[in-house]
Amino acid sequence: MNKVQSDFLSLLENHRSIRHFLDKKIPDFDIRRIITAAQSVSTSSNGQAFSIINVTDQEMKKKLANYAGSQKQVEDCSNFLVFCADLFRLEQISQRLNVEMKKVLDSTEMFLIATIDATLVAQNTVVAAESLGYGIVYTGGIRNNPEKVSELLNLPYRTFPVFGICIGYPDPNRIPEKKPRLPLGAVFYQNEYPNFDEVYPYINKYDETMKEYYRNRSESKREDTWSKTITDKRKIPRRMNMKSFLEEQGYPLK
Amino acid sequence: MNKVQSDFLSLLENHRSIRHFLDKKIPDFDIRRIITAAQSVSTSSNGQAFSIINVTDQEMKKKLANYAGSQKQVEDCSNFLVFCADLFRLEQISQRLNVEMKKVLDSTEMFLIATIDATLVAQNTVVAAESLGYGIVYTGGIRNNPEKVSELLNLPYRTFPVFGICIGYPDPNRIPEKKPRLPLGAVFYQNEYPNFDEVYPYINKYDETMKEYYRNRSESKREDTWSKTITDKRKIPRRMNMKSFLEEQGYPLK
Repeated sequence: MNKVQSDFLSLLENHRSIRHFLDKKIPDFDIRRIITAAQSVSTSSNGQAFSIINVTDQEMKKKLANYAGSQKQVEDCSNFLVFCADLFRLEQISQRLNVEMKKVLDSTEMFLIATIDATLVAQNTVVAAESLGYGIVYTGGIRNNPEKVSELLNLPYRTFPVFGICIGYPDPNRIPEKKPRLPLGAVFYQNEYPNFDEVYPYINKYDETMKEYYRNRSESKREDTWSKTITDKRKIPRRMNMKSFLEEQGYPLK
Repeated sequence: MNKVQSDFLSLLENHRSIRHFLDKKIPDFDIRRIITAAQSVSTSSNGQAFSIINVTDQEMKKKLANYAGSQKQVEDCSNFLVFCADLFRLEQISQRLNVEMKKVLDSTEMFLIATIDATLVAQNTVVAAESLGYGIVYTGGIRNNPEKVSELLNLPYRTFPVFGICIGYPDPNRIPEKKPRLPLGAVFYQNEYPNFDEVYPYINKYDETMKEYYRNRSESKREDTWSKTITDKRKIPRRMNMKSFLEEQGYPLK
C-alpha cells in the first residue's frame, strides 16, 4: 500500500461527527468543488434523483436548527446542506416529453431509488469535505418536522428532505474521540446470513468496548453498554407521521 | 489545496462503473481492510442498522447474476457484496433485553434509517475500494428478484437486500469513459428549491452534453438526449412487487 492509499483509508477511518464549529464561512468555491466531486458518485441508471439545498441564510438555519430539535450545530455551521430525494425533476421532464409516469413515480421502488441516490451523493460530499479538512455531522433530526422543513425550503411535490449535513471548520478544542464500531464479525458475513448465536459473541464484545468508551470519553460520560443504549434510544416510537408525510409529498409507497 | 487533497478529489471525480474484471481474486486481507475503513461512516444514533454479505462462492454469484437480470459482472467479479438493511439485529437485542419494539420496527422511519445506514456504508466501501485501485459497480438489479436473493443468502425477517456491489480488478482494456453529470445548476440550489423555469436551461445543456457523450463513447453508442434516455428507461413500471416483498420481509412501512 502506498502513501496516498494509506492516507485515503486513514481519512475514512478518522471520521467523527463534528458538532462544534468555528464562526467562519467556507468559501463558496470550496463548496462548489466539494459538490462537483461528489456528483461523480454512482446513481441508478444515471437518473440523479436528488437535489441539494445549500442553506447559508442565518435565519433559515436558525429555524432548521429548531425544527431538528434544538440542534445548535445547524445554526452554527457554515453551510447546512439538505439532501432531498427528487422525483419532481423526472416528472417535469416526462410531462414535457408527454410520457405517462404516475404509476412509476408512485412506486415504492422509485422511492427507494431516489432515497438511495440522495444518500450516495451525500456520503461522497462528506468524504470530499473531510478531505479538505472540513468537519460534518449528519442531521436526521430534520425528519422530526418534515412538513415545516419542506415548506421553508419550498420543496415541490415528489421531493422530500432525507437528512441534512452540517459542514464547517471544526473547533479544534471540541473534536470528539473516534467512536468504535461493531466488530466485523457482527456486520460482515461470508456467503450467507449466519445463525445469530454466532453473532452474539461479537455484540457482547462490542458492549464491553462501548462501556469503556462511554465511561472514558471527554463529554457526556455514562455507564452503559451499546445494547442498552441503542434499545433505550430506539424503543420510543418517533416520527410515526413519516408515512403520511411521504404520501402528502408525492411518495405514496405503492 | 495540497497534493493529498487534490488526489482525494480526483479519486472521487474519476469514478466510473466497472463491469469488466480480470479473473483474479482480491486478497481477503484487502476486503477486510476496506470494510473496516468503511465502517467508520456515520450511522444514525450509532445504530449500524446494516449487514454486508460477502459472496465469493462461484455458484452463488452465478445465481445472483441471473436473479439480477443476466448481469455477467456479478459472476465475473471477485467479491459480490450485498448490502442489507438490518433491523433483525436490533430486534434480537431488544428481545434479549425484554424491550418491546414491534411498533418501532414496523415504522417507515426505521425502514428509512436502515436503508440509509446500508447505503452510507456502501458508498464508503466504494471509496475505500477505489482508493486501493479496485473497480466497482452497484447492482440494483438484485431487487428484480428480492425474494430469491433473500432466500439464497438466508436473510432473516427484518433484513432486506438494498443493492449489491461487484468489486474486482478492473480490466484495463474495458474502462469506460467518465459519464458527465447534470450541471450544478440542475441539482444544487441556494437556500430554497427554485422555480423549475430556472432549472430547465441546465437540463437542456445536459441533454446536449449527453447526446455528444452517447454518440462518441467507445461502447453502446446511440443518438439520444438524457431526458429521452431517462424517461424511456423509467416509464416502464418495474419491481412493482417491492412493497409486498418489504412487508413479507418485516418492513410493513407503517
